[in-house]
Amino acid sequence: MLGLRKKCLVTGGAGFIGSQLARRLLAQGCEVTVLDNLFTGSKANIYDLLPNPAFTFLVHDVTQPFWGQFDEIYNLACPASPVHYQHNPVETTKTSLLGIMNALDLALKTKAKVFHTSTSEVYGDPDVHPQPETYWGHVNTIGIRSCYDEGKRAAEAICADYRRQYGVDVRMIRIFNTYGPYMHPRDGRVVSNFAMQALQGKDITIYGDGKQSRSFQYVDDLLDAIELYMAKPRAEVERFFDGKGLGCPVLNVGNPGEFTMLELAQLTLKCLPESKSKLVFQPLPQDDPKRRRPDISLAKEFLGWSPKVPLAEGLPKTIEYFKRFV
Amino acid sequence: MLGLRKKCLVTGGAGFIGSQLARRLLAQGCEVTVLDNLFTGSKANIYDLLPNPAFTFLVHDVTQPFWGQFDEIYNLACPASPVHYQHNPVETTKTSLLGIMNALDLALKTKAKVFHTSTSEVYGDPDVHPQPETYWGHVNTIGIRSCYDEGKRAAEAICADYRRQYGVDVRMIRIFNTYGPYMHPRDGRVVSNFAMQALQGKDITIYGDGKQSRSFQYVDDLLDAIELYMAKPRAEVERFFDGKGLGCPVLNVGNPGEFTMLELAQLTLKCLPESKSKLVFQPLPQDDPKRRRPDISLAKEFLGWSPKVPLAEGLPKTIEYFKRFV
Repeated sequence: MLGLRKKCLVTGGAGFIGSQLARRLLAQGCEVTVLDNLFTGSKANIYDLLPNPAFTFLVHDVTQPFWGQFDEIYNLACPASPVHYQHNPVETTKTSLLGIMNALDLALKTKAKVFHTSTSEVYGDPDVHPQPETYWGHVNTIGIRSCYDEGKRAAEAICADYRRQYGVDVRMIRIFNTYGPYMHPRDGRVVSNFAMQALQGKDITIYGDGKQSRSFQYVDDLLDAIELYMAKPRAEVERFFDGKGLGCPVLNVGNPGEFTMLELAQLTLKCLPESKSKLVFQPLPQDDPKRRRPDISLAKEFLGWSPKVPLAEGLPKTIEYFKRFV
Repeated sequence: MLGLRKKCLVTGGAGFIGSQLARRLLAQGCEVTVLDNLFTGSKANIYDLLPNPAFTFLVHDVTQPFWGQFDEIYNLACPASPVHYQHNPVETTKTSLLGIMNALDLALKTKAKVFHTSTSEVYGDPDVHPQPETYWGHVNTIGIRSCYDEGKRAAEAICADYRRQYGVDVRMIRIFNTYGPYMHPRDGRVVSNFAMQALQGKDITIYGDGKQSRSFQYVDDLLDAIELYMAKPRAEVERFFDGKGLGCPVLNVGNPGEFTMLELAQLTLKCLPESKSKLVFQPLPQDDPKRRRPDISLAKEFLGWSPKVPLAEGLPKTIEYFKRFV
């Protein structure tokens, strides 16, 4: 670090997690540059940051090279919800692959440390529960979800090889289902669906019998893990992951607690006692996302981290945020 | 097709399979352009084609865009043997991914039909034997083979999406272990290793007890399958693969016959009765390629194809070819 303040680049920094990360890095005293093409990200997510002189916003697409001198590069650019990533599958894959290549080429040029957001989707439709980092996954290469899943899998391979071949200090997290303020209100997944339906007094749509379960991680828990991870000295990171026989530093970060769709719907309505919404049941769609639950032993051991925010605490804050869209 | 003769582009056309394909396409009366960066390909593989006025050779790297008007694009550019693809893993992945993106972008611009070579490596270390096209594979995203395996998996995803999203007529084959004249003499895999050792009078190195088996496809059988596949009308291709529930036209092409390493070594020595080589046994290396055997039911059903050339016929021709390197 040559400057007086740490300089951070956040790609996808106008998105849900990226904007929250940018906010936190600024609070820590960093200079933060956000790069976003505003496809699923929104300038509204960073309105509050714009007056801060330590903050810079660039409209740019990560599939094209980008330059600047940074100490840390956080690569969060990629649509992550099925309705978004299936809108333009070819661009989704390019965003994953060219985005990480451009980030790593910049890291190589500038000696930056890289944080890459991978995903529980690399595990696909798992035949092991819960999933540890050593699990290789179960993914269809040519299905309608593969633009995201295989793009993210190959992005991991690219990270692992830039580290082995060029010595780039790259650290990955496989993020499991995460929710919180600054989520996209039309994200299409269950937390935002239920909250928006309840806020608008529409019926809450439950697919199947509602007994299928999901795990939900509050965004602050994820940001804690990222902060702890990036603060670790490189030698310690290498030692730990080499000791675990993993080809690259990669950690599952999620909340292993499981809730059924019915429980989530009931909790949502409890947050909005004035809502007139009722639960309605519809048939399960064919490509319903599969059950996944993180094994977070490694993150616990390495970071001393575990999720702290229960759904009963995180959900009201998220619903409060969604009120601005009604 | 606007021209009088079909115009074909073969990326990786100075390599083993690419040069053989270029030779066959010329024999069929096509105009053929070969594009190769000469990393594992060699100009010597196409010396005989250079005087042909229907043949054009371009030194170029598929990670950079390429242009021209073609009726058919055959994407064969990528180092395929572990010693080659691990020489520069980052470039291996870029070759897979940027190569197919550039080929598909060119197809989109020119309405070309695309043939993409995928690989049995997308199945990784399979837990199903033999492997049908519907098997999703078992691959480590961050291991030392992942530059090739995950690059090739994501390339399949990209092909599937260019077809679904933009209507590109793309057809893939997952090639299983293939041998024949124009193989790289230092390919590092067992057919060339044994042949070169026997030709040079060196001991033939067998790892482990030599009882592990492999399947070997003679290159002419593969070329037959490619020719039959590309000649199929598009409507027939769509109907067949949609009927099989596959997200994209993809066929296993390989020889399901299995031989042990000992049998291959003995057959090699039988071809060279004057050789002074002896068999020596060494411990099995840690990342010894795993056993894979193609389920070729789909190729049989769709193309009426099955491999014709037995090892006892293909191996002598291959060894004859290798004599020029001794």
